[in-house]
Amino acid sequence: MEPNVIDFINTSRDRYLEELKQYLAIPSVSALPEHAGDMRRCAEWTAEQLRAIGLENVRVADTPGHPIVYGDWLHAEAPTALVYGHYDVQPVDPVELWTSPPFEATIRDDELFARGATDDKGQLFAHLKAIEAHLKQAGRLPINLRVILEGEEEIGSPNLNQFILDHKDELACDVVLISDSPMFEKGVPSICYGLRGLAYFQIDLRGTSTDLHSGSFGGAVANPAFVLAQVLSQMKDRGGRVKIPGFYDDVRELTDREREEFKRLPFNEKEYRKGIGAPKLHGETGYSTLERTWARPTFEVNGLLSGFTGEGSKTVIPATAMAKVSMRLVPNQDPDKIAELFEDYVRKVTPKTVELKVTRMHGGKPWMTEIDNPFVQAAARAIEMGFSRTPVYTREGGSIPIVATFQAELNAPTVLFGLGTPDENAHAPNEKLYLPNFFGGILSAAYLYEEIAGARR
Amino acid sequence: MEPNVIDFINTSRDRYLEELKQYLAIPSVSALPEHAGDMRRCAEWTAEQLRAIGLENVRVADTPGHPIVYGDWLHAEAPTALVYGHYDVQPVDPVELWTSPPFEATIRDDELFARGATDDKGQLFAHLKAIEAHLKQAGRLPINLRVILEGEEEIGSPNLNQFILDHKDELACDVVLISDSPMFEKGVPSICYGLRGLAYFQIDLRGTSTDLHSGSFGGAVANPAFVLAQVLSQMKDRGGRVKIPGFYDDVRELTDREREEFKRLPFNEKEYRKGIGAPKLHGETGYSTLERTWARPTFEVNGLLSGFTGEGSKTVIPATAMAKVSMRLVPNQDPDKIAELFEDYVRKVTPKTVELKVTRMHGGKPWMTEIDNPFVQAAARAIEMGFSRTPVYTREGGSIPIVATFQAELNAPTVLFGLGTPDENAHAPNEKLYLPNFFGGILSAAYLYEEIAGARR
Repeated sequence: MEPNVIDFINTSRDRYLEELKQYLAIPSVSALPEHAGDMRRCAEWTAEQLRAIGLENVRVADTPGHPIVYGDWLHAEAPTALVYGHYDVQPVDPVELWTSPPFEATIRDDELFARGATDDKGQLFAHLKAIEAHLKQAGRLPINLRVILEGEEEIGSPNLNQFILDHKDELACDVVLISDSPMFEKGVPSICYGLRGLAYFQIDLRGTSTDLHSGSFGGAVANPAFVLAQVLSQMKDRGGRVKIPGFYDDVRELTDREREEFKRLPFNEKEYRKGIGAPKLHGETGYSTLERTWARPTFEVNGLLSGFTGEGSKTVIPATAMAKVSMRLVPNQDPDKIAELFEDYVRKVTPKTVELKVTRMHGGKPWMTEIDNPFVQAAARAIEMGFSRTPVYTREGGSIPIVATFQAELNAPTVLFGLGTPDENAHAPNEKLYLPNFFGGILSAAYLYEEIAGARR
Repeated sequence: MEPNVIDFINTSRDRYLEELKQYLAIPSVSALPEHAGDMRRCAEWTAEQLRAIGLENVRVADTPGHPIVYGDWLHAEAPTALVYGHYDVQPVDPVELWTSPPFEATIRDDELFARGATDDKGQLFAHLKAIEAHLKQAGRLPINLRVILEGEEEIGSPNLNQFILDHKDELACDVVLISDSPMFEKGVPSICYGLRGLAYFQIDLRGTSTDLHSGSFGGAVANPAFVLAQVLSQMKDRGGRVKIPGFYDDVRELTDREREEFKRLPFNEKEYRKGIGAPKLHGETGYSTLERTWARPTFEVNGLLSGFTGEGSKTVIPATAMAKVSMRLVPNQDPDKIAELFEDYVRKVTPKTVELKVTRMHGGKPWMTEIDNPFVQAAARAIEMGFSRTPVYTREGGSIPIVATFQAELNAPTVLFGLGTPDENAHAPNEKLYLPNFFGGILSAAYLYEEIAGARR
């Protein structure tokens, strides 16, 4: 990379902070109708910024909700990357818990406090500043770049899918870059290469037409709350393994390399356990905690409701019993196939003494980009140069639905290029951004575009 | 019995109805503060009635709640019976569902409609009229009689226990008579000789200090809602038998005679099943439905609550899970002993991955008076004479706490001399009294006092 790009970044830090503070001053809370004007203002500010850094075809695209901001630069004989981010932020309540006002970005020590500091204005801004450095100093980018920034991520991206479907050609790319997640730990830059999927259900059992008196009728009929317990208890064995036949058929086993990578991570089981207040950690036999939460499927009961749940005692045989249950899925499990296996099994283990209804609530595919994918490797090199540390490889137990959409609709791998830290209070009071990561992130992003160019050579 | 007692009863029917209508016109709803004055008025009316029929030592005894009315006649060289009943009634809401006003007793066909018609003013009034017939026509009662009528039965008798404790000598008796329950079926007079007891608990499990995201943490910790299902499922085997060690040790087995009696009852399993809307009846293997609901102990889940129970889906690992559970007990199980067995077993089957708390909510002893008890046999003969039908012997699956109190404090057996029918809407709109039972009940009660006198001879 041209040295003056790096110099430019290193000498522009004060300006970057001033600009980011301006960006953070716009209360772009997507969830609250009273901020609709701020959302529009923030989209315009974002578009203006895209123009200022030298992107082309910049526009604010209306949706049925908040607008999507787009810009690109497409003059390279090189791969095309799509940078995704979001300019909307979470609400700030309870605002009294903030040490400084949420929309007046304030630096204390090496942290910048403001709503949106890490999620996601700070992280997306790192990309914009890296783009700017290339375009201002080299007059070009090493790759083709598209930038798409939405205003509804914090409310579930209700209009993004349709926008992508409607603009498939315009968004065509070789790789998607997302900086909207934390590193494994402060000071431990990492690349998250896998996410779990989800299959969520509601089970409803009915035993009788109304609640019955447990004295008069106890012994005559099956109790749906007890039957529910029987049914649920058959979902996992004592070793924490899911008992649904065929459940593990498509599970991609961890490779030796992955298990080695995870073992090297600075993970303290005892601290972790104390942090969540559990008397003991527990999960599938034969796997470490990180392996279980990142790379193994699970079965969880998310909710239970039946009969009398108030204070005191009521001697009732409930007419109905309800459970919300869900499975986290890993590559290459398919939510629809798992749904069928689950439904068959529930039907099999539920006795005929109750009526059974299973409702499919929600499904999401697991996602993974293999560690040796050339774009992942490009990102690893970029992080190493930007942070002067070799990144670790991690996965995540949760889902990021947009990643599956990019995979499905644009047929492009995603690199999760997370610049946050786990303690930055995204969604909570006193959200903050660790400034060494912000500056390191700008450098890394600048290197990343170069490395992606090289990845295809 | 002197023939003129029977004649007196048979020729006084119209007067009985007029008096009962007056009694039912007093809205003695114990649960509602606005009826406090009506409660006092009803107690006074009741006391005046006791005086009018010839009882002595009549008084309205104040309690911290509604008063207790007492009267006696103690001039016989014969056993002493204590007649218990209650002059308070249930609220009438939803009042718009009543065909005629709840406090204007109305006769349609052979039924009298009013709140309190069967529960319990109508049934206790049958005793008062039987007493009156003896005292007016014979100038004496064949036995010593005490009458105690409370005003708080429908709100759980909060002050009756203390009153009994404070007046043990005054209430001393050889047998307690209670007419506050239905017969097995209209036209099938019956004697209920056994009730089940109760042991009620709340189980609370805690897995972590707060709810966790099921994506980030799924696989790391035990899910308390799932653990609860595992724990509960171990309480009964597939055959419906409770698995708590020692649970059946003190269970009095059904005698051959009892099983024969139950088999003779007009009980239609199919109609019963349809009536409660169950796809199938279910319970402990080796026992009939009546045997299971009357004479076998049970384990029931009365309530379940954990995690997310609203509409839709929320991917949470609940921090806590709660179950209300209870066991119906039969002679000679002891609620305290069962509580210890249960708590030991729950502790044993709950894994160390969660914190366990078991709370004892409520306990009640089972009760039984053997069929061949002389007072039960006296009641059987009295019913046969009053209703011209041989009574059947039944038990009940529920509890009547006062019966255990009489047994414990007065050391007297109880005869449940139920004059209601199962379809009389006690506690519901359009409560009613089947008049042939009312008149038959007065005759039976008159015979009963004679037969009790004979039972000791």
